[in-house]
Amino acid sequence: MSTIVLKFGGTSVATTDLIKSAASIVKKEYDAGNNLAVVVSAMAGTTNTLINLVKEINSSVDSEYDVVVSSGEQVTAGLMSMALNQLGIPSRSWLGWQLPIITSGPHRNSLIEKINVEKILKDFEGKKVAVLAGFQGLSVEGKITTIGRGGSDNTAVFLASALNADRCDIYTDVDGVYTSDPKITSKVKKLNKVSYEEMIEMASQGAKVLQTASVESAMSKNVNVQVRSTFKPNEEGTEISIDGEGEILRAVTGVAYSKDEAKITIIDLVDEPGIAAKIFNKLSDYSINVDMIVQNNFIERKMTNLTFTIPMGDLEKSLSILDKLKDQIEFSRIISEDKLSKVSIIGSGMRNQPGIAAKMFQCLSEQNINIEVISTSEIKVSVLIDKARTEDAVSSLHDTFKLDNI
Amino acid sequence: MSTIVLKFGGTSVATTDLIKSAASIVKKEYDAGNNLAVVVSAMAGTTNTLINLVKEINSSVDSEYDVVVSSGEQVTAGLMSMALNQLGIPSRSWLGWQLPIITSGPHRNSLIEKINVEKILKDFEGKKVAVLAGFQGLSVEGKITTIGRGGSDNTAVFLASALNADRCDIYTDVDGVYTSDPKITSKVKKLNKVSYEEMIEMASQGAKVLQTASVESAMSKNVNVQVRSTFKPNEEGTEISIDGEGEILRAVTGVAYSKDEAKITIIDLVDEPGIAAKIFNKLSDYSINVDMIVQNNFIERKMTNLTFTIPMGDLEKSLSILDKLKDQIEFSRIISEDKLSKVSIIGSGMRNQPGIAAKMFQCLSEQNINIEVISTSEIKVSVLIDKARTEDAVSSLHDTFKLDNI
Repeated sequence: MSTIVLKFGGTSVATTDLIKSAASIVKKEYDAGNNLAVVVSAMAGTTNTLINLVKEINSSVDSEYDVVVSSGEQVTAGLMSMALNQLGIPSRSWLGWQLPIITSGPHRNSLIEKINVEKILKDFEGKKVAVLAGFQGLSVEGKITTIGRGGSDNTAVFLASALNADRCDIYTDVDGVYTSDPKITSKVKKLNKVSYEEMIEMASQGAKVLQTASVESAMSKNVNVQVRSTFKPNEEGTEISIDGEGEILRAVTGVAYSKDEAKITIIDLVDEPGIAAKIFNKLSDYSINVDMIVQNNFIERKMTNLTFTIPMGDLEKSLSILDKLKDQIEFSRIISEDKLSKVSIIGSGMRNQPGIAAKMFQCLSEQNINIEVISTSEIKVSVLIDKARTEDAVSSLHDTFKLDNI
Repeated sequence: MSTIVLKFGGTSVATTDLIKSAASIVKKEYDAGNNLAVVVSAMAGTTNTLINLVKEINSSVDSEYDVVVSSGEQVTAGLMSMALNQLGIPSRSWLGWQLPIITSGPHRNSLIEKINVEKILKDFEGKKVAVLAGFQGLSVEGKITTIGRGGSDNTAVFLASALNADRCDIYTDVDGVYTSDPKITSKVKKLNKVSYEEMIEMASQGAKVLQTASVESAMSKNVNVQVRSTFKPNEEGTEISIDGEGEILRAVTGVAYSKDEAKITIIDLVDEPGIAAKIFNKLSDYSINVDMIVQNNFIERKMTNLTFTIPMGDLEKSLSILDKLKDQIEFSRIISEDKLSKVSIIGSGMRNQPGIAAKMFQCLSEQNINIEVISTSEIKVSVLIDKARTEDAVSSLHDTFKLDNI
């Protein structure tokens, strides 16, 4: 007998028929004698509808935003419990405040501190399936909160850890993690196993299966995560755990990309201690997410060119923030460029195989693709290129590293 | 400084623009220095959408039904609080479990036992408006419940009583209680004042402004209720309180009707003690609401003809229930008739003025409208007639009792 957390995302519970299908997946695991906790997202589209209502009111109060938006998961939890009942499986729904799921931090972007699992364990004793509304919790002030980063996935991973579960199955609309985006190259292959680290890099480099925060949480708690398809429940998905297969078998596990990047370069910035902190703190105050950073020092001139990338949508805002900093920092001018993409190769095996980055640059050069910025980590190499060449870059890298043959 | 409960029904909060309009009504009362608690229904249409989801799941579990359906009021409460914030009015939303509003009885049809108002009184101290999600509460088991009879109106009336409020303003899509249905006769007049008793009779005889249960609750707690229009907030509505104007001024206050009634007659029923109880208990077990009951005894034959009315939609079910009772009760046959209407005249002044019923029958007879069943109370006379003649009956009675001149 295992304890399993099953999480169903919005597209997996988008209609009542899909909720019934998801319930039959739960039934299979239940009939096998497992203790089950099910975490559900809001039905696809519901959260956006609720957010639009808030926007129309034109005055968002964060704590009330959470009251409104958390209702979506509440509805799915009730419906899922009824659907299980229809299949003869005893169950009940649990909202964040009922367990409770204690959170900290600001509304709309709270962090789970603790999930009280006593009531769920009691459900298990009574052979009941516990159905949890994902994405929500309770503040110490007794108010409803919602979890920003990772949402319901994070609820599931945290719950799996709190229950010391054998597995955390994330059911979604794709059947696993792929070597790259099937929309770009038909040669993609599903990965049977990836390591947490690989998955974190993939997620942060643009793969949309799981959010970085959820994988980080799984890694820190050592939760065995399975990404599986609601629509092909009999197929194996991708296992995300401490050991991928990359260390031995693969230098490169996947090619990820994110479009709509922009680049800002501050030319002839007078290089004083703390100058970078000043700039990036200011951008961070305005919630602008700076990604790649490159600095070229001209030591003899005590000046530097500072280049960094941001989401394209934040370009104008960033430029106006920098403009306001003119009095505090000294530079000659600012140049910016948009319509860029970031393309990354990721793989734990990189650690043991030298020359991977060189092979990447060689491949792009053969394709006549110009590299604007490079950034690397232990298990990842990212390059910034012309957005129009994204597809060429991804598919030629996929070929170069023979990911169709993984 | 007064304490006022304001309740906004579903059509009054059907869109975010309407929620903003409702908030500006609240602002007017707030600026006048009053302590305010606002009770909101779900946005019009939301509850039906949620109920349809439950129906699609095809297995309703009452406690989970409440989890799903109560989410509608939760959303409006959050949005209303934001809309108040937008107008510079401090406020916060309260869900049933947060106060809590303690209920008893079965799920989907719970009764409010107690509203803990400590937190609301604290809001008042801080000049905050308390916004309550109507229609919901908390069971002693800690589960979400919904209030069957009267819904959010009942929440408002109960809250007004618990707060010892000066007024309970029910904002709705009509601007008060009328002498009859404007759709039938254009001569209707708005009533400035009606008594609880009159309103109860009107509500139970088909007037749709308030549900009987809410008025009964207001009467038992002596809550001064004002029915007002969200769309004409500057107009006086109708006051419902212990003394209407009827005692002195009016014999008849209104003409109400309900269509889609059916009649069943059990012919030659062997009249034993307890026989009526047996029949009506059985119908009640199946939630069939019996309304008018008439019995004609033939004493020498120890037999009776028992006639009663039910909603037309319950006719077939009722006939099949009676059919199953064949072994337990003795009768010769059953006849039934549908396509009937009940038309009622209501007024506290009837108590002091004899001949009102006779005047009603005279009027109908002049219109050549046949009366099938008569039922009376102290302040009401109801007749069952051919549904096709409903409009004729209502408008001629409205004329006869000079309600256009009230």
